[in-house]
Amino acid sequence: MQLLLMSNSTGPDGGYLDHCADVLQEFLTGVSNLLFVPFAVSDELAYGAKTCERLDRMGVRADWADRTGDLVGQLRQAEAVFIGGGNTFRLLDRLYSTGMLDAIRRSVADGVRYVGASAGTNVASPTIKTTNDMPIIEPPSFVALGLVPFQINPHYVDRDPDSSHQGETREERLFEYLEESDRPVVALREGAILRISRKEVLLLGSLGARIYRRGKEPLEYPAGTQLDDLLDI
Amino acid sequence: MQLLLMSNSTGPDGGYLDHCADVLQEFLTGVSNLLFVPFAVSDELAYGAKTCERLDRMGVRADWADRTGDLVGQLRQAEAVFIGGGNTFRLLDRLYSTGMLDAIRRSVADGVRYVGASAGTNVASPTIKTTNDMPIIEPPSFVALGLVPFQINPHYVDRDPDSSHQGETREERLFEYLEESDRPVVALREGAILRISRKEVLLLGSLGARIYRRGKEPLEYPAGTQLDDLLDI
Repeated sequence: MQLLLMSNSTGPDGGYLDHCADVLQEFLTGVSNLLFVPFAVSDELAYGAKTCERLDRMGVRADWADRTGDLVGQLRQAEAVFIGGGNTFRLLDRLYSTGMLDAIRRSVADGVRYVGASAGTNVASPTIKTTNDMPIIEPPSFVALGLVPFQINPHYVDRDPDSSHQGETREERLFEYLEESDRPVVALREGAILRISRKEVLLLGSLGARIYRRGKEPLEYPAGTQLDDLLDI
Repeated sequence: MQLLLMSNSTGPDGGYLDHCADVLQEFLTGVSNLLFVPFAVSDELAYGAKTCERLDRMGVRADWADRTGDLVGQLRQAEAVFIGGGNTFRLLDRLYSTGMLDAIRRSVADGVRYVGASAGTNVASPTIKTTNDMPIIEPPSFVALGLVPFQINPHYVDRDPDSSHQGETREERLFEYLEESDRPVVALREGAILRISRKEVLLLGSLGARIYRRGKEPLEYPAGTQLDDLLDI
């Protein structure tokens, strides 16, 4: 199992896949055919084309998954799958309706490398219960790919002490999750990335991550930390 | 039908039900028995007790809905129902599991006054598809009370131009909703309140609201605006 789970795909300067280009290129070394899944957005064609063009500039040949075509055939030829960001509920709904949820899960177990960004990282968790997205579509279930045994919260933001906003902070939302579940949550700040193999979890990116566990104080981890014990849940 | 739908229950100074006390008291004139529903939070007892005490100080006698007791009997005696804030998914799940979703819908149709705050305002919409909350629990359906024919987004926040956050802005999330539905969304800033009767919708509070309709530019409305045409959907 080889996974690269990114908090976000667009950097603070607006560059698409720029902030993670080196890590992505290294992760995809030797991959001659990648399948990009653009299901999380409305305009799948534009998103698919943009991503394939960007990957091409990194030297990675990619197709995008076309829901009107032969998805199973496309997946069979792929050595890597990349699920992009957008709305997690829409993405999961389409993974169910196309049968790709099970198909991708099996492919990754068989050694196909997996890249997720934002919503694509959310669906690598056992459920989508720690997404930040608006539930604009009701999927058949909140159960997701479950490629890792813990939950991920991408785009993690710290509380703004100057805000007069009375809605919940992200931390309050994660504590609410832990009221209902004892699965740990890895909260990835912008730019943070998890590089995961069968027994290893390595935290990359600049701003680090925060891990929430039921009944415990959240803990901070800087980039470069090995978080292998997350796989022993 | 008499509804008071509030964006939030706690003001920027932290005072519980202070910012809306005058409007709430006027709305509840003549009500001698209110039922408060604390299902959206984990500690229902503390939330119920706090709210009943606060309402008592306004001269409104209130009980809180106890899921271990006779909810139907409690509802039968109530002249007003108040559903408080917390997590919308947890709230809706419990409204289903207790049978209160149908029971409250029928009561409101029969003239029981309805007050919602935050999650309690979300569930007054046809669905919870415009909540900001994390989906920590999977309810049997996203279909909610449907007391109004439009969607509401509470705690609406404008984009912060100084933010380096790469997650979606609230406006982007509402546009995503409109990619999947043609139901209008009333986005209530902190402090905003909708006072609704059979043919009237009046916007109260200081910061106003923003209405999103598919294929149109969002429109701003100041407090004091009549929005009656929202009922003609």
